Amino acid sequence: MRVKGREYRTIWPKDGKVAIIDQTRLPHEFALVMVETLAEAAAAIRDMKVRGAPLIGVAAAYGLALAMQADPSDAGIERASAALLATRPTAVNLRWALAMMREHLLPLAPAARPAAAFARAAELAEADVALCAAIGDHGLALIRKIAAAKQGPVNILTHCNAGWLCAVDWGTATAPIYKAHAAGIGLHVFVDETRPRNQGASLTAWELLQEGIPHQVIVDNAGGHLMQHGGIDLVIVGTDRTTATGDVCNKIGTYLKALAAHDNGVPFYVAAPSPSIDFSLSDGIKEIPIEERAASEVTEISGVAEDGRIARVRLTPQGSDAANPGFDVTPARLVTGLITERGMIKADRAALAAAFPERAAQTP
Amino acid sequence: MRVKGREYRTIWPKDGKVAIIDQTRLPHEFALVMVETLAEAAAAIRDMKVRGAPLIGVAAAYGLALAMQADPSDAGIERASAALLATRPTAVNLRWALAMMREHLLPLAPAARPAAAFARAAELAEADVALCAAIGDHGLALIRKIAAAKQGPVNILTHCNAGWLCAVDWGTATAPIYKAHAAGIGLHVFVDETRPRNQGASLTAWELLQEGIPHQVIVDNAGGHLMQHGGIDLVIVGTDRTTATGDVCNKIGTYLKALAAHDNGVPFYVAAPSPSIDFSLSDGIKEIPIEERAASEVTEISGVAEDGRIARVRLTPQGSDAANPGFDVTPARLVTGLITERGMIKADRAALAAAFPERAAQTP
Repeated sequence: MRVKGREYRTIWPKDGKVAIIDQTRLPHEFALVMVETLAEAAAAIRDMKVRGAPLIGVAAAYGLALAMQADPSDAGIERASAALLATRPTAVNLRWALAMMREHLLPLAPAARPAAAFARAAELAEADVALCAAIGDHGLALIRKIAAAKQGPVNILTHCNAGWLCAVDWGTATAPIYKAHAAGIGLHVFVDETRPRNQGASLTAWELLQEGIPHQVIVDNAGGHLMQHGGIDLVIVGTDRTTATGDVCNKIGTYLKALAAHDNGVPFYVAAPSPSIDFSLSDGIKEIPIEERAASEVTEISGVAEDGRIARVRLTPQGSDAANPGFDVTPARLVTGLITERGMIKADRAALAAAFPERAAQTP
Repeated sequence: MRVKGREYRTIWPKDGKVAIIDQTRLPHEFALVMVETLAEAAAAIRDMKVRGAPLIGVAAAYGLALAMQADPSDAGIERASAALLATRPTAVNLRWALAMMREHLLPLAPAARPAAAFARAAELAEADVALCAAIGDHGLALIRKIAAAKQGPVNILTHCNAGWLCAVDWGTATAPIYKAHAAGIGLHVFVDETRPRNQGASLTAWELLQEGIPHQVIVDNAGGHLMQHGGIDLVIVGTDRTTATGDVCNKIGTYLKALAAHDNGVPFYVAAPSPSIDFSLSDGIKEIPIEERAASEVTEISGVAEDGRIARVRLTPQGSDAANPGFDVTPARLVTGLITERGMIKADRAALAAAFPERAAQTP
């Protein structure tokens, strides 16, 4: 998508290295970083220079490719996989992408592995672009229907960043928005700031700004009020992990917006690329472990100070502790539909199994 | 309540002036301010140096007393009332306290008004302390019951600051907490940071820290997840305005926590001093105008920088707008009970009218 009028992706190979956008410096600075080693790739994922389920998967694939340049042995594959897997325990895409890479590389002679790894990572990247574009097309149809039934812009609420910055291009939750905007449909996007890491305020808002799409940032507390007053036509969010039954594990706070949508008859859609679906899970609340992140993400925040420099400030009194669960689970009963690359799917076991029979069958 | 081990109130008269705690500088700095004129009192309320429904009422009463020192005429009373009323349009206590003051002062000779006004303001302050203490006693009974039925500490979630800093002493939502702690009941308080102004992270956390009560700050997104996993035994929040039917207008985001409590069978209590009840209203969502506050409250935030100074940082990309509704309305159906100074009341018209017949009868 566009940055200062020029088309970018979030990750691309260049001269045996991998270029990424350092997303921790957005929205205040647009900086590209060249990643050269496995350690740098793992650090980029762990430190959230690259983040978002789909992008993490592709970044891990490229990370494995970088590792092959240093050690293309079987042991090298296993060591690199383990290092990459450890960076973000919740991300099912990471596991999936690394499995695809291992499966592709292990039968090959070590000498052939570096080039093959880069080629395979590029294929995974292209597959993700196609997948997001397909989600965008299915979501566009939905937005078109809502636009036809009302006067004025379609008001969309989104939480966190499930934008192109979290994928390779298009994004998941934003793909329908970008496609609808391109199709000339009037939109107004309310962007949850998404504490504690403020991915909405910093990344989604920045994306929409670069694409010229009307939007307003709101605090995470505000969405319910807007829905009570008819200010939201639909909610679209992403997912980090989706169960076989349609429960959705996504950024902390998603569940609260789903409750508000349900209470006010606002449709609540989840852009769910199939790699995010874990057919081995059937109860998201009981079965999905939730990452407890550092208290400092709650007690401190970064932004641009008056002198233009990035500054970190403490928000809480010295001595107060913080709890910081990173994700929550929205039960399937609150999800109007899953927008997958194969179309809109009801959030239940039968519909998901029917849409992805090859995936459902694989699972014991 | 205690600050650095010493007992304070939030407001008190001294030598024809009025002392307040500058709450905008908390939690990083504890600073007292002497307010000397009507204009300073109005500014203190408008700039939220004093905030919280009960304290705003008492501060307005003292503001009127300060105004009487300069102009004790009938016109002076009306001018001062209008100026104070304009500072916070949502606060029903402000209107109520000013009405009480006018009623008391207008029959008196102008020369007698300054002293009478200070005396009356002090009575309103004492009445608020008694009222909060009574809410505390009723809430204590509730917490005692919950503590008796479980092992370990009672886990309480609160939103915003309905603590002693928003009243004269005790607070409303915190009064039961302080009384329970004093009674030796083990507590753990989860404090919603309460974006955009972070009254939870800055004020409630600071209060609890000063009183030595175990607590953790959480982002506003986290409460639903904690409730899904049995981590919250009860929610207690305050109210800025309560309808005759039990709808509760409180800080933005309260509604989302009420939805989560309802969805998880967690009791949701509102500490509702009777001056917050507006018996002329019967549908909070339709009838209560919601203050739209400055976008800069969302796009910027203050905290302590590494050098120890208070710094303001911008969170959003330059060019992104923000919407900022200040309050939302929690429908009575989501409220387990209203903790008033006359005991626990069901959130409905009949129960409220039975508990406050003199107030209900006044209303056309």
